[in-house]
Parts: sequence; structure tokens; C-alpha cells
Amino acid sequence: MTDFQRVDAYLEANLDRSLDELSRLVAQPSIAAQNLGLEECAALVGEMLRSRGFQVSILPTGGAPVVFAERKGRSEKTLLFYNHYDVQPPEPLEEWDTPPFEPSLRNGKLYGRGVSDDKGHIVSRLFALDALLATEGELPCNVKFIIEGEEETSSVHLHEFIRQHTDLLKADACLWEFGGVDHREVPMQYLGLRGICYVELSVETASVDVHSGLGGSIFPNAAWRLVWALRSLKGPDERIRIPGFYDPVKPPSPRDRELMAALPEVAEEYRSRFGVQEFLKGLEGGLELRLAEVFEPTCTICGLTSGYQGPGAKTVLPARASAKVDFRLVPDQRPEQVFEQLRAHLDAEGFSDVHVELLGGEPPARTDPDDPFVQIVVKTAEEVYGVPMQKVPMTGGSGPNYPFVHDLGLPVATAGLGYPGTRAHAPNENIRIDLYLKHARHVARILSAFAAS
Amino acid sequence: MTDFQRVDAYLEANLDRSLDELSRLVAQPSIAAQNLGLEECAALVGEMLRSRGFQVSILPTGGAPVVFAERKGRSEKTLLFYNHYDVQPPEPLEEWDTPPFEPSLRNGKLYGRGVSDDKGHIVSRLFALDALLATEGELPCNVKFIIEGEEETSSVHLHEFIRQHTDLLKADACLWEFGGVDHREVPMQYLGLRGICYVELSVETASVDVHSGLGGSIFPNAAWRLVWALRSLKGPDERIRIPGFYDPVKPPSPRDRELMAALPEVAEEYRSRFGVQEFLKGLEGGLELRLAEVFEPTCTICGLTSGYQGPGAKTVLPARASAKVDFRLVPDQRPEQVFEQLRAHLDAEGFSDVHVELLGGEPPARTDPDDPFVQIVVKTAEEVYGVPMQKVPMTGGSGPNYPFVHDLGLPVATAGLGYPGTRAHAPNENIRIDLYLKHARHVARILSAFAAS
Repeated sequence: MTDFQRVDAYLEANLDRSLDELSRLVAQPSIAAQNLGLEECAALVGEMLRSRGFQVSILPTGGAPVVFAERKGRSEKTLLFYNHYDVQPPEPLEEWDTPPFEPSLRNGKLYGRGVSDDKGHIVSRLFALDALLATEGELPCNVKFIIEGEEETSSVHLHEFIRQHTDLLKADACLWEFGGVDHREVPMQYLGLRGICYVELSVETASVDVHSGLGGSIFPNAAWRLVWALRSLKGPDERIRIPGFYDPVKPPSPRDRELMAALPEVAEEYRSRFGVQEFLKGLEGGLELRLAEVFEPTCTICGLTSGYQGPGAKTVLPARASAKVDFRLVPDQRPEQVFEQLRAHLDAEGFSDVHVELLGGEPPARTDPDDPFVQIVVKTAEEVYGVPMQKVPMTGGSGPNYPFVHDLGLPVATAGLGYPGTRAHAPNENIRIDLYLKHARHVARILSAFAAS
Repeated sequence: MTDFQRVDAYLEANLDRSLDELSRLVAQPSIAAQNLGLEECAALVGEMLRSRGFQVSILPTGGAPVVFAERKGRSEKTLLFYNHYDVQPPEPLEEWDTPPFEPSLRNGKLYGRGVSDDKGHIVSRLFALDALLATEGELPCNVKFIIEGEEETSSVHLHEFIRQHTDLLKADACLWEFGGVDHREVPMQYLGLRGICYVELSVETASVDVHSGLGGSIFPNAAWRLVWALRSLKGPDERIRIPGFYDPVKPPSPRDRELMAALPEVAEEYRSRFGVQEFLKGLEGGLELRLAEVFEPTCTICGLTSGYQGPGAKTVLPARASAKVDFRLVPDQRPEQVFEQLRAHLDAEGFSDVHVELLGGEPPARTDPDDPFVQIVVKTAEEVYGVPMQKVPMTGGSGPNYPFVHDLGLPVATAGLGYPGTRAHAPNENIRIDLYLKHARHVARILSAFAAS
């Protein structure tokens, strides 16, 4: 029996126990947006690490605490795992087939809020460490974990935390919190994340709502002010109208285009998965759709609220209105700069009455697709998944990779248990048990290969 | 003791009993927009009329039933009372000092949803009839009541009901459901109502909400579609952009301007009552503000809803968005025409994906300020309120006066117990007990004078 055969045998034999542990973690709500259960979840994650012989610290950040953990290994190399224990809000609750915080196993899948994003990643990685410890008696290299509790609210305190703990977090490479296979079952290597600038726009035009018959033609209406302010940000041509917004944007390089061109078609899958009739800007598919998806910045309305929202008619002129707006940023845009540009634009367009609050911001960042650590992760994936891992130079999502890349100076590679039906951020979030196991097998191999590199 | 002294003495002596009856009626929720408690409330109103010797029919309309009641009187003249037993939704509940459906008497006011609009009017009118019956043994003229249950949802079935019951509803004049004093304590005679066209705009761009990091730059966003469609209806210049919308609008006549010019200034009162900083279109007050308030049609967003509305950030691209929009119409606009113009406009502007549903419509209508019945109501008001009643040729609100004026051919005058702090449609709706009593006294005098005219 080879080392990896023993590892794999351990994982097969102990799968149910690991899923039980994951279910316990999922059953602990930890909703960053609602400041719910975060301390309790951090404590639970800390206990899980401590029980594996890690030295654990629960460190304050000004928001939800960071769980930091460290255990020495055979080689001098240090791998840093980045994960998060917070989850998205579960709403709309009525669209869940089983309650979001009561994990449910059926048809080879485990359902629950956070089961994929990101608690499944945490526990499957611990599972990989269990297998290495059980079969080798020690870890092949030094391992550190940084597990934060504000990823779903744009990691507002993480950047500053990393800047203040660069020594503690010293490592040689970082394995990111997510990853997985695409619709062809091909494991994917995601090498860049867009940044984000998440704001709330709000307007108040009166102290109370007014009967619409009285005020309609003479009183300002908060909902109209909001609609006009939003329209000033972007029109149906999808061009973002904030002056200077596009100035720092770097177009994809020839290497980016080459890697993007090698990726499979996504148009049909998106159409059927999301029920989308057509794509924006006349895009129909192919390389140009994929490039637009990740190399362009966005301005997305995530939520609108004002006045009466119940059934039927209520004749009210709303005193208050608000919108949640999410800008996705590409290199070299910066959230604080976009926030300033947005404020200046609204003022210039006559919307000084529209209040803007920054709810979260992260700069975009990328890792070189040809970095040696990336090559290790890609090579070991093929051993587990049976097909070559495919490199994606940039992805549409966001995350706090900037301080890892630019403050800690680490290559950041991805590996994970996701798949296209995982429904992260949506009702009925789930993981496939087969991919949970594969991710643990992959992580065990990454650690061994990295230790020897 | 004169007849009216005996009537007034009766009303003083029996006030508490009448308020108890009003409280019972308010305690029965009857929310048209939510189809809640309507049948029960109609039955209760029917009982109240029956107990006064009225012949009562609860008649179907296709929606909430109409309570029709009739009792003969001394003269051959017939006065028709129009009222409604439905109320506005009570939300937002947290802004009520006492629960909306548990009437609360304090500091000379009675609080509760519908206590003013319109249940207080129903019961104070019954109270006036009680006084006439107690002191004279019969009513001075024939009295009919038409009390509907869909006024707050634009009386969708009333027009057709009236067309089908013109014989039943035959009368010589109509006393409208509302009225009252202004901030100077001067009783007001409202002689016209704007029409209304209340619609819901809705868009669906996908079958499920999408993670905003995935779809932001390539998927259509329902919230953006809605914002752009709304912006196509009206911009910050407040001009409604639907072609043909203004064509039927009649400007105020010289007599209208004369009556409007005699009305008091409203600017300061509106500023302090609603906390409004400034009025639209640079209006600062005076005749022009008053004319704009009632002689101009409007397009008001009454509600907006899409995506995530909870605390903090959720990175979601909404699949659905909707808005409630209320157009107030002036003579000779028609709701069905506006609805057609709206649909055509949205199609022409590229918003065929925006669905429009008509939730309610009523044409505008007016009564001649110099009609004899109006003169009776005005003259008797002075006897009760001690100051001349002031005529308002047109008001900003809406109601189903069109079929009364144009199908039944009746002059429609107003009298009521409202006052500027009555908060109809808002939390803490209330009436002043002194005005409740005065309205009953006024109604008793109207009936007597009308019978003799």
C-alpha cells in the first residue's frame, strides 16, 4: 500500500464521521450580514482545530474574530489555508426544501446554508489533515489557518488584520477557500478575483410617508430620487457613467486570452441553469462572453426597497428609499477610489440628497498562472480527478486575496469541493459527497508535494 | 327649545354610546388591499343600519360586497350617502403608539385604523340620524346609503355596480364620504376629485437570483430593468414622458383660480407637518403651489421591491423586481387611456419585458361649485362651525365620484370630521371628538334643509 492509498483508505473509512462534524458546524448559524452566531461559530471552529493539536488563537478584528491556528510539520515549508466561517443570509426561507440550518443528507448530497461556502471546505481540509496524521503521525509541512468571519460582508476588517499580523501569517504559499469542478467535472484553478465596492444608497425626502393624493405633484418622492440617482450610474447600454471609473482598468493580456480561450463554452449552461433568455451587450457566448464575465467591472443593484410592498394598492408617497449596489472591480481599480468617484458623481448630477454608505470594499488581485505553487496544485489535482486541472486567470467573484498577494507576498491557488449546482448564496445550497471526499484527497496530496518542493 | 337645540342635546347626551359603536366598527379589520375582514365588516355595517329601521341589502360586486340601505322620510327628496367600510393596510405597525385595530381614546382623540377614513364618517352620520329620529320621530327626507368595501383599492367594481343599479340609487343629491376642517378650523367644501390609475410594474429576468459575482457583467438584472423603465416615465424635471398623457388635461378656469386664490397659504403647514424641505418645480407656496397640487396629473412611485433588503450586504443579482405606481388624473384624463399609453410607451422605449398590471382606475370628476345642494351644505356648515365654509373646486385625492356625477347625474358635496392631523393612511390615524360631534350636528342640519329645499 502506498502512502496515498493509506490516506485514501482512511478517508473512505471515516467519511461519515467527517460529515457529522460538518453538519455540527453548519447547524451553528453564523450570518455576518446579521451579526448572528459569529462568536459561537468561531469558538466551535477553534475547538475543531485544537482537537487536532493546533495552537489556536481567537483574535479580535474590530468585527467578527479571526480564528488563527498553527501546527508544525516535517518540512520547513509553511502552507497557509484561508477560509471563512461566516455564511450568507438564508433568505428567502420559503424556497428551501429543508431548513437551512438543519443539514440534510439526501441523494449523495448534503444540504444547508454554508455547507459549500465555506464550512464544507474547512471540515474537508481538517479531514485531510486527520488522514495525514493517522497515516504518517505528523503533518508533512507546517500548516497555518486563517479563518475569518466577515467574508460574506466583504471582509471589512481582514486587510487591516493581515497588515498587523504579517509575522504571524508568514508562509510560503496560500490555499484559497474555494474551488471545484465545472459542469464537465474538470477541476478548475482560479487565479484572480475581482474586487468589490458594496454600497447602500438611501434617500429621505420627508419625515413621514404622505398620502399620494396630497403630495404627488408638489412633494419630493424618495423612491423617484433613488430611481433617478441609480439611473445616473448606468443606463440600458450597461456603460457605467461615473467619471474616471474605467480609467485604471487593464484589459486582458495575450496570456489571459489564451487561457480564457481554452475554457469551455458557458452560454448554454447559464441559460438553462439560471433561466436567462439572453446575455447583455448582445453577447451570445464564446470567448467574448467569458472575457466580459470576469475582466469587466460591474455595477449591480442587489436590492431595492421603498414604500408599500404588500399585496394590492396602497396610495402612499414614500419618505424613504434605499438600494444596495455592488461594484465588481478589476485590476487596478480600488474600492476607496470608486467610492469617492461615486460620491462626486452623485453630487455633480444633482443627487447630494442621496446618502451613500460603504458596506464593504476589497481591491482585485491575481496570482501568476505559471507560479510553482500553482503547478503543484494543478499536478496533484490530476492524480485525484483523473483529468488535467484547467487554469482560469480571472474569475467574476470577489474575496480578500489582495492582502495575501500584496501584503504577505504569497502565491494564492485554489482547490475546493464546489460544482455548478452548489447554489452558494441561494436557497438549497449543497455539496456532492463524492467531491467532498475528492477535495480531502487532493489537499492531502498538495501538502505532501508542497512539503517536498 | 328649537328642533336643532333638541338634536344637539341628544347628540351631547349620547356621544359616548356612539363612540362605543364606532370603536366596535374600527375593531373589525377590513383591509381591502389584503382582502381581510371585508365580509364580516359589511355584515356589521348592515346590522348597524338595520337597527335604525333601514332596509338593508348586502349586494355582490365581484369583489367586496356593497352595503345598500334605504329608509323613507317626510319629504319626497332623497339624499344618498356614499361611504366605505374598508381601510388602508396598517403597516408599518411599529410606528403606531397603540394597536391599529384596538381603538384608543386619549386627549380628546380616538385612535385606530379607519377611525377617520372612513368608519368615523359612517357612525357619526348614523348618530345624526339617531338624533333626528329621537327628536322628530322620522327622517326629514328619504335617505339611502351606498357603503362599499373597495375604496382603498380604487373601487374597482363600484362603477359597474352603479351602472347596473341606477334605479336603486336614484336620488337628488349625494353627500360624499369625507370632509372636515383645515388648519384654521374652517370647514371646507371639496368639489372635485382627481382620478387615479394605479399599476404594478414587474420584471423577471431569470428563474433564480444569481450570485452577483457571476452574473454582474453578463446577465440582465431585474432591478436595473425596473429602474430604467421607471426613469423612462418621469425624470427629475417632473414632466411625465408618456406620449399623449397631457393631451386631455384642462387647465383651471378663471372661476377655479378665483376660488383657489381665496384659500389660505399651505406651504408652511406642509413643511412642518411632513418635514419636507422644499417643493417640486421650484414652487414656494401661494396660488401656484395650490394649483399644482390639484390641477396637475402625477406619476408617483408608491413602492419599490427587489432583491435583498435586510441589514448589511448580500451579493445577489435579483431575478425579480416590481414597483407600485400611482397616476393621479385630472379632467378629462381617463385611467384606461393612461394604461394603454403606458403600455405603448414602455414598448416603444424597449421595455416590453416589463409587465404592467392595472390594480385600480377611476376617472376624475367635479361638481359645479354653485350647485344648489352645495349651497345647502355650505350654509348649514356655518351654523355649526361658526365660520363660513370655504369652497375648494378641486382636490388632490381620488375617489369614485365619477359614476355619481356622470351615471347618476347627482351633485356631490362633501362634509366630514377630518382635520389636518387626522393621519389618514398613516400610523396613528385619529379623529378629534369635538369634530365628530360637529359633523353629526352638520349632517342633521343638511338633511333638514335639503328636505325643505
